[in-house]
Amino acid sequence: MASKPNAFYAQSGGVTSVINASACGVIETARKHKDKIGKVYAGRNGIIGALTEDMIDTSRETARTIAGLRHTPGGAFGSARFKLKSLEENRAEYERLIEVFEAHNIRYFFYNGGGDSADTCYKVSQLSKKLKFPVQAIHVPKTVDNDLPITDTCPGFGSVAKYIAVSTKEAALDVESMARTSTKVFVLEVMGRHAGWIAAAGGLAGNGPDEAPHIILFPEVPFNKKAFLKRVDDCVKKNEYCVIVVSEGAAYPDGKFLADAGNTDAFGHKQLGGVAQVVAQMVKDELGYKFHYAIADYLQRSARHLASKTDVDQAYAVGKAAVEFALQGENSVMPAIVRKSDKPYRWTIGKAPLSRVANKEKMMPKSFIRKDGFGITAACRRYLEPLIKGEDYPPYKNGLPVYVQLKNVPVPRKLNKEFKLR
Amino acid sequence: MASKPNAFYAQSGGVTSVINASACGVIETARKHKDKIGKVYAGRNGIIGALTEDMIDTSRETARTIAGLRHTPGGAFGSARFKLKSLEENRAEYERLIEVFEAHNIRYFFYNGGGDSADTCYKVSQLSKKLKFPVQAIHVPKTVDNDLPITDTCPGFGSVAKYIAVSTKEAALDVESMARTSTKVFVLEVMGRHAGWIAAAGGLAGNGPDEAPHIILFPEVPFNKKAFLKRVDDCVKKNEYCVIVVSEGAAYPDGKFLADAGNTDAFGHKQLGGVAQVVAQMVKDELGYKFHYAIADYLQRSARHLASKTDVDQAYAVGKAAVEFALQGENSVMPAIVRKSDKPYRWTIGKAPLSRVANKEKMMPKSFIRKDGFGITAACRRYLEPLIKGEDYPPYKNGLPVYVQLKNVPVPRKLNKEFKLR
Repeated sequence: MASKPNAFYAQSGGVTSVINASACGVIETARKHKDKIGKVYAGRNGIIGALTEDMIDTSRETARTIAGLRHTPGGAFGSARFKLKSLEENRAEYERLIEVFEAHNIRYFFYNGGGDSADTCYKVSQLSKKLKFPVQAIHVPKTVDNDLPITDTCPGFGSVAKYIAVSTKEAALDVESMARTSTKVFVLEVMGRHAGWIAAAGGLAGNGPDEAPHIILFPEVPFNKKAFLKRVDDCVKKNEYCVIVVSEGAAYPDGKFLADAGNTDAFGHKQLGGVAQVVAQMVKDELGYKFHYAIADYLQRSARHLASKTDVDQAYAVGKAAVEFALQGENSVMPAIVRKSDKPYRWTIGKAPLSRVANKEKMMPKSFIRKDGFGITAACRRYLEPLIKGEDYPPYKNGLPVYVQLKNVPVPRKLNKEFKLR
Repeated sequence: MASKPNAFYAQSGGVTSVINASACGVIETARKHKDKIGKVYAGRNGIIGALTEDMIDTSRETARTIAGLRHTPGGAFGSARFKLKSLEENRAEYERLIEVFEAHNIRYFFYNGGGDSADTCYKVSQLSKKLKFPVQAIHVPKTVDNDLPITDTCPGFGSVAKYIAVSTKEAALDVESMARTSTKVFVLEVMGRHAGWIAAAGGLAGNGPDEAPHIILFPEVPFNKKAFLKRVDDCVKKNEYCVIVVSEGAAYPDGKFLADAGNTDAFGHKQLGGVAQVVAQMVKDELGYKFHYAIADYLQRSARHLASKTDVDQAYAVGKAAVEFALQGENSVMPAIVRKSDKPYRWTIGKAPLSRVANKEKMMPKSFIRKDGFGITAACRRYLEPLIKGEDYPPYKNGLPVYVQLKNVPVPRKLNKEFKLR
């Protein structure tokens, strides 16, 4: 008897506090359609799991554990930064994918990631056309960078935005109380290599230039040292303290990052870090103010304890929709969040063709940055506010969140030969 | 008619996410004893507010606003790092205090702070003996450093401990999912200048040396570079990743801090920061592993969104007890938390003489640090676990916590002359 086709699901790129909520959406929805989908096999470490036939049998997890993915941060099956080359450049990778899919009767491919991963998913979606292998590839959007096109927002972003907004607000209260005799300038470094979405979220902590954060340094606004220092000085003289949110991507007019650690990742992106220290030291050297700085780093994108309910709901919804699209016979698409109204925030799921998603970065509109370059506009606030709305606390035990741990039972290998990753 | 004596309350030293809960305890309890206590005047910026006659009339705040202090981080009246000299060294300061207290009919002095502040409070408590001015001084304990003697724990610490434990757990899940192709070593820098209490709290995230955090670097354990690097390497080879929690106070055997920014604060303490980068870079240079690091800095001590319920309850309780002690005629004491049992955690409020509190640091017992120096023991876990227990979420609106903002109406000055702070 011909068994029902199976599905492959994998997580790719930097993980988020809600990517597992998307996994939960995919798996729970697939389980509701047992007549059409056999099992969901998860790739260990993204596409690498498919290439190396290293897969996890999600059917071995209980319904309760899968439900727990909804409130568990990190990538439950392991993620990876690994981009497929083009068919012309590395045909062997595609032939290997087909070999593995064929061996395990995989006909659905769900790939959960950002821009680079959308490119991989798009390439897989072309297998049916170019190599006549009948696989449907659906991309499940995810990225804290919020830089995927078409979709109103990217699952993962809303929770980082909430974390940064809340943390900025809280730290500002701390600094304000101490400013008389202690720290006058506080710098919070946030993620966002090319787009200032996360930095902008810090702006939700206050209203206008006189409330913290008093200064936001965006990647979109070339750094002007003189204007920046004047602003810090004016701010401290007026308010006794100054809170600065700086994007890791903040750069000089010539494009050089304020902090350039010199390392590069597998995608060829520069590894950044330490801009907070650069900015704080600059303030100290030029103005003499006592400073402190925080670097949120992975804390911001793993902080499931402070997830945005809107974000969790959307992360689940795109996972669910991906499976539904597949069952409708779709290929090469991505469920996109479509905003129907700002206040109250209403959204639905639309369908975006992957050809229009892959390798495209959505930049922040100019209209979202205040004329002076140091803050957000009302339009930006209108866009961001609903995305951080609502709390969705995980359960706790003994003071710590209860995050699920999967058994991650491997799918028995069917192929003999090893595949050597380049 | 002779009016009822008033009370002075002030916040001192580094603020916490629950110091306002103590303020709430003081003010609400004083309001319940209007027959004996007139008004509570809050010092703006700690003892400076008393010296400069810069006080806030808390009676101008509604009951609802005062209740809101319980869930508002930062120091609502402003804090300060300012230590009174001894009577012999600066008699003018004490005479000024008496002048201000006399002018405003202040007979109760509640000082909310850590070790340095306990010293100030102790000196004020001696006014009645040394200068025959009838003031009762009660210290309200607070410090994230958890280094006050006698009391089981210091309000403020439990919430930082919870924040660090949860953040470590969450970031570890992130790093674990990415380790195959990305970051292998993650370093989280936490506060704690001389005692490793906060670093130890990171240990609650896992169980034993094979769970994250795999390594804790305590100020109590002289840094051994060779042993450290071997441990990191072994850990990455075994688990594919390594999570390190490092205290800002981690130091070489000669006492030199791993990171020494060179600045000093008003108390003469060195301002530290950046040890995470030092440790991460060391790993990169010697072992070649890709790293990320986070510096929690003020985020950890202002994170009211993740406060420990135990901590909030205790912060309130010591504020309440301080007023009750005063009404019982006590002087020169501090409400201390007394642990009655570990499991279930039961505690009550005891009374500690300030002479035994001031200027004494409670170090972490040796028995709390694992033999290998890189982790915590079962005894430490038994001590720490109850302190992070329970959640106490603030109310939210539009995705952000609703923190109260006081009117902070000044008390009209009665003295003509200015007091020049040294």
